[in-house]
Amino acid sequence: MCATVFHGPFDVRVEQVRDAALQEPTDAVVRITHACICGSDVWPCRGLEPFPPGGRLGHEWMGMVEDVGSMVSTIKRGDRVIAPFAFSDGTCEFCHKGLYTNCLHGGFWGQDHDGGQAEAIRAPFADGTLVVVPPSVDQDEALLKAILPLTDVMGTGHYAAVSADVHAWGTVAIVGDGAVGLCGVLAARRLGAQRILLLGHQGSRLELARRFGATDLITSRGEQAEREVIEVTGGGAESVMECVGTKESMDTAIAIARPGGSIGYVGVPHGSEHPNLERLFFGHIALRGGSAPVRAYLPELLANVLAGRLDPSPVLDLTVDLDGVPSGYAAMDQRKALKVMVRP
Amino acid sequence: MCATVFHGPFDVRVEQVRDAALQEPTDAVVRITHACICGSDVWPCRGLEPFPPGGRLGHEWMGMVEDVGSMVSTIKRGDRVIAPFAFSDGTCEFCHKGLYTNCLHGGFWGQDHDGGQAEAIRAPFADGTLVVVPPSVDQDEALLKAILPLTDVMGTGHYAAVSADVHAWGTVAIVGDGAVGLCGVLAARRLGAQRILLLGHQGSRLELARRFGATDLITSRGEQAEREVIEVTGGGAESVMECVGTKESMDTAIAIARPGGSIGYVGVPHGSEHPNLERLFFGHIALRGGSAPVRAYLPELLANVLAGRLDPSPVLDLTVDLDGVPSGYAAMDQRKALKVMVRP
Repeated sequence: MCATVFHGPFDVRVEQVRDAALQEPTDAVVRITHACICGSDVWPCRGLEPFPPGGRLGHEWMGMVEDVGSMVSTIKRGDRVIAPFAFSDGTCEFCHKGLYTNCLHGGFWGQDHDGGQAEAIRAPFADGTLVVVPPSVDQDEALLKAILPLTDVMGTGHYAAVSADVHAWGTVAIVGDGAVGLCGVLAARRLGAQRILLLGHQGSRLELARRFGATDLITSRGEQAEREVIEVTGGGAESVMECVGTKESMDTAIAIARPGGSIGYVGVPHGSEHPNLERLFFGHIALRGGSAPVRAYLPELLANVLAGRLDPSPVLDLTVDLDGVPSGYAAMDQRKALKVMVRP
Repeated sequence: MCATVFHGPFDVRVEQVRDAALQEPTDAVVRITHACICGSDVWPCRGLEPFPPGGRLGHEWMGMVEDVGSMVSTIKRGDRVIAPFAFSDGTCEFCHKGLYTNCLHGGFWGQDHDGGQAEAIRAPFADGTLVVVPPSVDQDEALLKAILPLTDVMGTGHYAAVSADVHAWGTVAIVGDGAVGLCGVLAARRLGAQRILLLGHQGSRLELARRFGATDLITSRGEQAEREVIEVTGGGAESVMECVGTKESMDTAIAIARPGGSIGYVGVPHGSEHPNLERLFFGHIALRGGSAPVRAYLPELLANVLAGRLDPSPVLDLTVDLDGVPSGYAAMDQRKALKVMVRP
């Protein structure tokens, strides 16, 4: 079968690999119908993060089950399934707590495991990981596209909102206009926030933020942006969602949080590893976040998409086939695309 | 009147100052009957923290109201009152939220304000700050001593526990065997924690921790201590209370928190300003704390002490009169005393 393989910075190839196959009785094999390229895939491809040469790529995917192991009980051949970006056994202490990305036996797609930017994938812990999508949606390409971001960016935006303690009538500031930040706008609106500020810089993304429900767009940078948020909110936002992971974005998040407020941070730390606690300490600002346990939110978010009440599909602004994956990476690297959908 | 004045590192003097007097209609003047020396008072006196020469000292105190301004309505002459370590107007957004240490018009005793290690004190915002202690306790010196730590260390220990999300049947690890850490043991037990680990090194303090309800004493240091906590708890404590404020104590707190757990940090940052977020991110560990809004907890903790269900008085292991305050600082600096009570 064909799969996307990392060979080094700026060298992503689609090539023949051994067919995906069952290895454990808890596995499923899934024929991939839809996948995405994630902003976090682009980091190693820019040479900004280590990644093993020969490693598979792609952790956002959906498809049709082709085979299941003997111990799989909730997933069957022919099911359409969606996967969160991490797999999890569904049975350990942390899975029971809803912390699927801390699963004692879990892991992430890609690298040593099969990746999602491929024709098919071996899915460990199928029962604990995969969620069945009703067959009724199979002919509805628009609905499938709306479901696809639940694999990562929409679930991550939701987790950022939950971690930032977004609540009805609250004021929220979102740092970052990438796909996660934009999905964060949707999540904040869904949770009933009254005022939603997005800090970003790129025209088309800001327009999308507005469509998604942002009430205020802050387009300046650094301290000027911080001053504007403080002014507009009369002292800072109760909930701040940090959706980038750089030092600058974390500094901004800390500066614009209201005393007693919360910062939800979901940008994988790339510079934000050592935030300055002083304002957090004296402002009683909580810091909470991490790699989103998307599996916990898939059922409720899926139900919302199926009911027509949530549609993150506009973040997918470029579609490629499997051979087009390298050009999709280039488009995201050059910021010509916000997020790429792959149709193998 | 006499008051304690900072003249420089290792130079604390009790000297004549202008009598405490009403300045604003919201003030009270209180004759101090009991005060404490706090670990945070000792920092500047060791030359480890800037403090203005000529500044007053002492932020933990209790006394009898001598005079009140014309706008004070809930406090009257002759009342016995206890003060939290910060004053607050009681009317702003943050006071209404219970975040008294973020009061828009508040401040801390000492420095430019009157201090508590003195014969008397001017208390701004008497209605928003002071809590009346029933006159029935006035003859009960043991009860007064049990009430006194509510000014700071007991309220701070409680806030650390709340920030660390301590709950019934939970497992708690407390980093630090100072007065705050020891009060943290009491707070964790009061909130129903089943297992309470204290990390500390000093014999008499460990003994007190055991009396207060610690179930496990971890006396090793650094990575060895971390390994022991991980082992004893089977993977880390759900709630960790960081009660020191150094880099080492914060590193330890982060290392011993269970995935999905919470760290409550109340040690004023003296090295802990830049924690490493990586384990917090991938472990979904919340970080929350600050300068405790003790005023919020005074009524409930006072009720508990009066009912005989809470007694932090053993942390006060040395008593001095006002002239003895400099020797009290020396005793705490040399770790000959855990915490000093002052009886002016």
